[in-house]
Amino acid sequence: MDLNADLGEGFGIWRLGDDAALLDLVTSANVACGFHAGDASTMRRVCEAAAARGVAVGAQVGYRDLAGFGRRHIAYAFAELRDEVTYQLGALDAFCRLFRTRVRYLKPHGALYHAAACDEAQAAALVAAVGDYDDQLPLLCSPGSVLAQLAAGAGLRVVAEGFADRGYLPNGRLVPRTASGALVTDPEEVAARAVRMATERTVVAVDGSVVPCPVESICLHGDAPGAVRCAELVRAALIDAGVTLAPFA
Amino acid sequence: MDLNADLGEGFGIWRLGDDAALLDLVTSANVACGFHAGDASTMRRVCEAAAARGVAVGAQVGYRDLAGFGRRHIAYAFAELRDEVTYQLGALDAFCRLFRTRVRYLKPHGALYHAAACDEAQAAALVAAVGDYDDQLPLLCSPGSVLAQLAAGAGLRVVAEGFADRGYLPNGRLVPRTASGALVTDPEEVAARAVRMATERTVVAVDGSVVPCPVESICLHGDAPGAVRCAELVRAALIDAGVTLAPFA
Amino acid sequence: MDLNADLGEGFGIWRLGDDAALLDLVTSANVACGFHAGDASTMRRVCEAAAARGVAVGAQVGYRDLAGFGRRHIAYAFAELRDEVTYQLGALDAFCRLFRTRVRYLKPHGALYHAAACDEAQAAALVAAVGDYDDQLPLLCSPGSVLAQLAAGAGLRVVAEGFADRGYLPNGRLVPRTASGALVTDPEEVAARAVRMATERTVVAVDGSVVPCPVESICLHGDAPGAVRCAELVRAALIDAGVTLAPFA
Amino acid sequence: MDLNADLGEGFGIWRLGDDAALLDLVTSANVACGFHAGDASTMRRVCEAAAARGVAVGAQVGYRDLAGFGRRHIAYAFAELRDEVTYQLGALDAFCRLFRTRVRYLKPHGALYHAAACDEAQAAALVAAVGDYDDQLPLLCSPGSVLAQLAAGAGLRVVAEGFADRGYLPNGRLVPRTASGALVTDPEEVAARAVRMATERTVVAVDGSVVPCPVESICLHGDAPGAVRCAELVRAALIDAGVTLAPFA
Repeated sequence: MDLNADLGEGFGIWRLGDDAALLDLVTSANVACGFHAGDASTMRRVCEAAAARGVAVGAQVGYRDLAGFGRRHIAYAFAELRDEVTYQLGALDAFCRLFRTRVRYLKPHGALYHAAACDEAQAAALVAAVGDYDDQLPLLCSPGSVLAQLAAGAGLRVVAEGFADRGYLPNGRLVPRTASGALVTDPEEVAARAVRMATERTVVAVDGSVVPCPVESICLHGDAPGAVRCAELVRAALIDAGVTLAPFA
Repeated sequence: MDLNADLGEGFGIWRLGDDAALLDLVTSANVACGFHAGDASTMRRVCEAAAARGVAVGAQVGYRDLAGFGRRHIAYAFAELRDEVTYQLGALDAFCRLFRTRVRYLKPHGALYHAAACDEAQAAALVAAVGDYDDQLPLLCSPGSVLAQLAAGAGLRVVAEGFADRGYLPNGRLVPRTASGALVTDPEEVAARAVRMATERTVVAVDGSVVPCPVESICLHGDAPGAVRCAELVRAALIDAGVTLAPFA
Repeated sequence: MDLNADLGEGFGIWRLGDDAALLDLVTSANVACGFHAGDASTMRRVCEAAAARGVAVGAQVGYRDLAGFGRRHIAYAFAELRDEVTYQLGALDAFCRLFRTRVRYLKPHGALYHAAACDEAQAAALVAAVGDYDDQLPLLCSPGSVLAQLAAGAGLRVVAEGFADRGYLPNGRLVPRTASGALVTDPEEVAARAVRMATERTVVAVDGSVVPCPVESICLHGDAPGAVRCAELVRAALIDAGVTLAPFA
Repeated sequence: MDLNADLGEGFGIWRLGDDAALLDLVTSANVACGFHAGDASTMRRVCEAAAARGVAVGAQVGYRDLAGFGRRHIAYAFAELRDEVTYQLGALDAFCRLFRTRVRYLKPHGALYHAAACDEAQAAALVAAVGDYDDQLPLLCSPGSVLAQLAAGAGLRVVAEGFADRGYLPNGRLVPRTASGALVTDPEEVAARAVRMATERTVVAVDGSVVPCPVESICLHGDAPGAVRCAELVRAALIDAGVTLAPFA
C-alpha cells in the first residue's frame, strides 16, 4: 500500500503543514508546483528530501490562484489548463532530475481535483497534458471520477486513492463534506479503517455496510491540528498489520 | 552564424513583438518562461512553431516581475535565483519535449542579463542552475562578462553574442545606452555591421577603429517600430554575403 | 446620454486598446483597477487625463486573474469578493483624489459582469462593497440583471447600459454571443442604433420588433480593429441628432 | 509613547505572526497592503479590530514581491514606486473608512524601508505619494534617514521610531544585523530599554555610552518565537513606569 500526502504547500516566507514530519511517514509526496502554492526553493528542498528517503514525487498541479490556494473553481478553457499543467509538470521534473529521479505521477489539487472528477473539459486537459508529456505517468485520483474514466480510455494508468478519515456512502462514494458522517475524527478509528482498506480493500460505509474500496494509495492529511499524529498512527497500524508500504509508482 | 531574438514575451491577453515574423528570420528563439513575461500557452505555441522550422529554443529566464517586465534589478539571494532558473528551465523543457526537441541553451533577460554581467552571486546562480540541470547546455551572453567567466570556469560552453544595432567602444564593450553613439538606427548600416561581424568577426567602434568581435550569434530585436523590417534586412544581407545561418546549439 | 468604455486595461509593458482616442469620445471611463488588468501608473495617467476632460471615472472591478484577463468565472465566496472590490475601489479612488475628483460609479468586468447578472452571492458582494464604501455610488450594469435587482433593493442607484453593437431579443435581452445576430458590425448601423437608444429609448430587435431600451449609458468598445472609428461615428451621430452627451454620475 | 507593530502579514491561506495578540498590545498597527503581504479580507479584519480598540492604522507599504516578502531590494523608478504607494494607501484607506476611521500614517516595509533610508529617488517617491494623497499624514521611519530628511523638507510630519530589541552605535544608529551586539534578546533587558527610551529619550549604546534616542514610537516584533511574550513585557514595563501609551497620530 502507498501513503500519499500534500507537501511543499508554503509560498515564500509562509509555511503550511509539517513537511519534515510527513516525509518520514509517506511513500508518495504530492508536491505543489507553484500555481496554487509552492515556490522553486521549496520544490527543490522537498524533492531532495524525498529522493533521499525513497519517497516518490508526484506533481500536485493546481489552478493559478495563490490568493485562493487553488480551492476556488476557475472556468479554464481546455488548452489553457492543459498547458499550465504541462508547465507545472516540467518545472517539478527539473527539480527531480537534480536528484536523479523523475516526477512519478500527477495528482490534481483542490478545486481542480473536484472539477476533474465531473467536468469533461478539465479532466481531458489533465489527460492530454500527461499523455503528451509522458504516457507512462499514472494519475492519482478518485475511483469512478470522470478523470479516472478519461485517463483509462486514453491508455493512462489510473491509481485510485482512499481516505481513511472520510466517511463513505454505500455506493462507494465519499459522504459530502456538508453531510453528517463526512469526517472520521478519532485517530484510532482512522488507523483501523486504513488497515481495512489495505488488507481487505473494503471500507465500512455510514450505514454500517461493508463496501469495496479498491485503492492503491491512502491519502494522509498534514495541515490540521493533530494531523501528523494521526498519520503516524495510520502508518504504525499498517506496519503492525503486516502491510508493506511502498510507492505505487 | 546564428541569429537570436526574444520571443513569446506576451502574457495572457497581451502581446509584445511579432513572434510569427521573427520565427521566420532567426535560427535561435529566446523564449520567455513565465516569470518576467510569457505564459504556458504562448510557450507551447512558440516551441511548436520553432520545432517545425528547425529553430533552436533557448530559455530566456528572468526575474519574477511581470509588472516590471524583468527590467528592474532585484536583489535575489543565490539560492532563490538558482532555483527559479531551474524552475523556468524545466517548464520550458516540458514544451520542447512535446515537439521532440529540448531546451538548447539559456539566455538571461533584462535586468538579470545586466546583473549577471557584473554580479558574482547572480552569475553564479545561473551557472549553478545550468550545471545542475544539464552541463551540456550553453549560455548565451556578452563576451567578457562575469557570467561568461564563471560559466567557462565551471566547464560550461559560453556563446558570445553581438549587437549589430549597438555602438561599440574601442575596448570591445557596448557604448552605454545613455551615451552618444549607443544605437545604430539606419537599417542598411545595421545589416552591414552584421555582415562584418559574421564574416570578419570585427566591428567598427565609435572612434572608427576596427576591433575584434568574436561572436557566434547576433541578437535581433523585434519589439520596436521597424524592428522586423531591420531584422529582415540583416538576414538577407548575411545570406547575400554567403554566410550560413544555423543555430549555434 | 452617457458614453462609457473600458480604459487602462494594459499591465506593465503591455497595452490594450487606445486609451487616448477613447478619452476624447466617452463621458465615462471604466478604469481597470489592477486585478484583471491595470497597474498603478496607468490608473494615475487615465485618472489625470479623465479629470482634465471632465470624463467621469468608474471602477472597473474584476477577478484577481491577470493571466485570464478576468474573463474566466471564479467561484469566489461572498466575503472574498466583497473585500477585493472594496480594495479596488479604494485604490482607484486614491488616484481620483490626486486630481480633485472621486470614483463616480462601479462597473464589473468580464466574467464578474456575467456572474453578477445571475449569481446572487457575487451580485450581493458587489452591492455590499458599494453600499459599505459609499452608498451614493451608482452601479453600471445590465437592466434586469440580478445585480440590478439587488442593488435597487439595497437603495443603490442602478444605471442601465445598452450596447448599440449587439443584437437584442424581443424580450429586451441581448442575443447570446453564440447565436446569429449577436453582433452588429456595420458602423453606420451601430451609430443609428445608438441614436435610437438615446432619442427614443428603444432598440430594433432581431425579429424586427421595436422594444423598449431604457438605458442611461451606451457602452463603446475600444479594443477591436475599427473600434475607435466606430466609436467616433456613434459620438458624431449622437451629436448630430441633438443628443447631449454627459456623464450620468 | 506609541507602540507599533507589523500586522496583517499573511496572504490567502497563509498566516504570519499573531495579529490578535499584537492588537491588544500596540497603539499603532502597520497593516500590510497586499503588495509584499496582506490580502483584502485580512486588511478588512485588521482594520475592524484596530478601530474597535482605538489602535491607529498605518499603511505598511512595500514592494510588489509576494515571493520575497518585500525583503529584496527592487530598483523601482520614481514614478512606479510613487504610484504603487498611492495605490496601497488608497486600498487600505477604503477599509479604514468602512469602520469610520482613516489611514493615520505610512511606514515602509522591509527592503523599501532600507532603501528609503539612503536612496533619494525611492525616498522621494514615498514623500511624493504621501504629499499628494494627504499632506497631513505622518511618515514613521528612522531618525536621520534620507526619507526623514526629504519628508521634513517637504513639510510632512516625520515620526521617529526606536527599537528596544536592537543594539545602537554611539552615533545613534543601529548596529548592523551582521555585527556583534545587533540584537538584544533578553526580554527583561528589552523592556528596560523601552522604558529608558520612553522616559529619558535615551538608549545605552554598545560601548556603554548613553546616547539620545528622540523617538515617538517603539517598534515591537511579532513574528519570532517568544516575540509576543516580549511585547507583553515591554508594554507592562512601560505602564508600570507611568508611561502613557497612545497613538502618535
